[in-house]
Amino acid sequence: MKTRITELFGIEHPIVQGGMHYVGFAEMAAAVSDAGGLGIITALTLKTPQALKAEIEKARGMTDKPLGVNLTFLPMLTQPDYPGLVRVIIDSGIKVVETAGRNPQAVLPALKEAGIKVVHKCTSVRHALKAQSIGCDAVSVDGFECAGHPGEDDIPNMILLPRAADELEIPMLASGGQADGRSLVASLALGADGINMGTRFMATKEAPVHDNVKQAILNATELDTKLIMRPLRNTERVLDNPAVQRVLDKERQLGEKLKIDDLLDEVAGVYPRVMQGGEVETGVWSCGMVAGLINDIPTCKELIDRIMSEARAIIAERLVGAIA
Amino acid sequence: MKTRITELFGIEHPIVQGGMHYVGFAEMAAAVSDAGGLGIITALTLKTPQALKAEIEKARGMTDKPLGVNLTFLPMLTQPDYPGLVRVIIDSGIKVVETAGRNPQAVLPALKEAGIKVVHKCTSVRHALKAQSIGCDAVSVDGFECAGHPGEDDIPNMILLPRAADELEIPMLASGGQADGRSLVASLALGADGINMGTRFMATKEAPVHDNVKQAILNATELDTKLIMRPLRNTERVLDNPAVQRVLDKERQLGEKLKIDDLLDEVAGVYPRVMQGGEVETGVWSCGMVAGLINDIPTCKELIDRIMSEARAIIAERLVGAIA
Repeated sequence: MKTRITELFGIEHPIVQGGMHYVGFAEMAAAVSDAGGLGIITALTLKTPQALKAEIEKARGMTDKPLGVNLTFLPMLTQPDYPGLVRVIIDSGIKVVETAGRNPQAVLPALKEAGIKVVHKCTSVRHALKAQSIGCDAVSVDGFECAGHPGEDDIPNMILLPRAADELEIPMLASGGQADGRSLVASLALGADGINMGTRFMATKEAPVHDNVKQAILNATELDTKLIMRPLRNTERVLDNPAVQRVLDKERQLGEKLKIDDLLDEVAGVYPRVMQGGEVETGVWSCGMVAGLINDIPTCKELIDRIMSEARAIIAERLVGAIA
Repeated sequence: MKTRITELFGIEHPIVQGGMHYVGFAEMAAAVSDAGGLGIITALTLKTPQALKAEIEKARGMTDKPLGVNLTFLPMLTQPDYPGLVRVIIDSGIKVVETAGRNPQAVLPALKEAGIKVVHKCTSVRHALKAQSIGCDAVSVDGFECAGHPGEDDIPNMILLPRAADELEIPMLASGGQADGRSLVASLALGADGINMGTRFMATKEAPVHDNVKQAILNATELDTKLIMRPLRNTERVLDNPAVQRVLDKERQLGEKLKIDDLLDEVAGVYPRVMQGGEVETGVWSCGMVAGLINDIPTCKELIDRIMSEARAIIAERLVGAIA
């Protein structure tokens, strides 16, 4: 398939594996890229420039296709060594950087000068327009359905994608709610140029996460996610479990007096314990509503090939058939 | 376009105008049906069998194409004369009944014996399966985006439609977030057989509502709706205005002590004042997020023709082009 995203990133299929904390290691990114999508290594999971460099080299040993890196800007007390991470990204021959969180303006000149394409994650039309105006090459537009941080506007992709498409000139990835060939064709129809998948890629053979995580995604329906931290305007969509219920209880008890410190024990620093340790019930972790559409654990290549053949069949048979 | 919905209803285009209180009069339904979609007269707006009979006859004078009637089952103290309304529907040669609210089982035998197709509105997969099991001919699946009552699950159509399509055998309309050719093609790709539009049809020349209502929809963005009555588990998506802010204030003040009586002055019985009286700021009224995608007031025929030609172009050019 050929879209503005496949052209921009130099990839075969318009399918990107979005940045995921303690999931976006070399095994994950290389498997997606090698299958013709774009795999993304999560810089902040690796923490230091040295560790990121080693992880990129490891992925390089697994595929010679384009690779991306996610660089998330958070309000943290101890800031990561962003200049060092950017230098490693440039020196390692990375083709695409997915930025997320705060405004990525500070790193854009260096990345662009190195010929790296920058796609910024946004949850609203106004943020997408801002990303375009500062020189991002593409945006990844995250609907209300998505895992992790959907923002505070609660606009699903059925509305958000065509609204963004009406205003944007740069290419757009649809993020949130993406599972299969149906999602891909729907997103293309709504104005996107490709899709970004997170939760779906966690339930693959190569995903470097504990089998408990994959099974929890398989077992979940679309009704099994919760939004936490809404009172803090830092909303996160997570898989419902006893730890999440404790967070929601605390939110209800404290109401307007809630502070991030009240939740910190539950929500912070548990990603390695969940993702690699398999503690899926005792940790709080991101999961999209799309879990309800995930029923198997294929390889990344099987998954991507299936999405593409489904998408072609929907277009060539179902849709062309309807207008014949 | 030919889909299971156009075949089931005997209509040209897979576009239905959903039941809307104090909007679904003869002028609205006849204009949609005459343009090749399916127009629906709202029975409870007319109240008595006699008034419904007169309204159907009026619409019959405006088009000879198929017409539908919406029959909503609410928990009301004084029950409408449902048997009388059903008799009028059957005697008037109505082809389709859209049921909504509570289980429509009681009216199904009479409607089906008369050869009338029944499409039930649902906001969840489990309700859609229930509707199928009791003998409904189709379902109209209402995503989180929708105007009016989205239910309490908050599942947008990007997830809800493919989930429902995986489980259902009967045809499905996509309801909520439907505005244009992009929505139609996306919904078909996600497994729907047609679309149901409400808010979009309110902003048409023929819609028998005050011009203030149409202008308010044009002025609204996707960010301008609110969910009210959530604490009562009777959530409704409405256009934000001062009346809605009073409702939300009262919900916050009363918390778990909130009763429907506390909101009754604001939310009940204002539809004629808003829709025909134009009091868009002082009344609480349903409006979908799709308002953000509505920028003009065409005739129903102009709107439907545009949606269909957009849809054909998206399929034949954008999508077929991507896989060429």
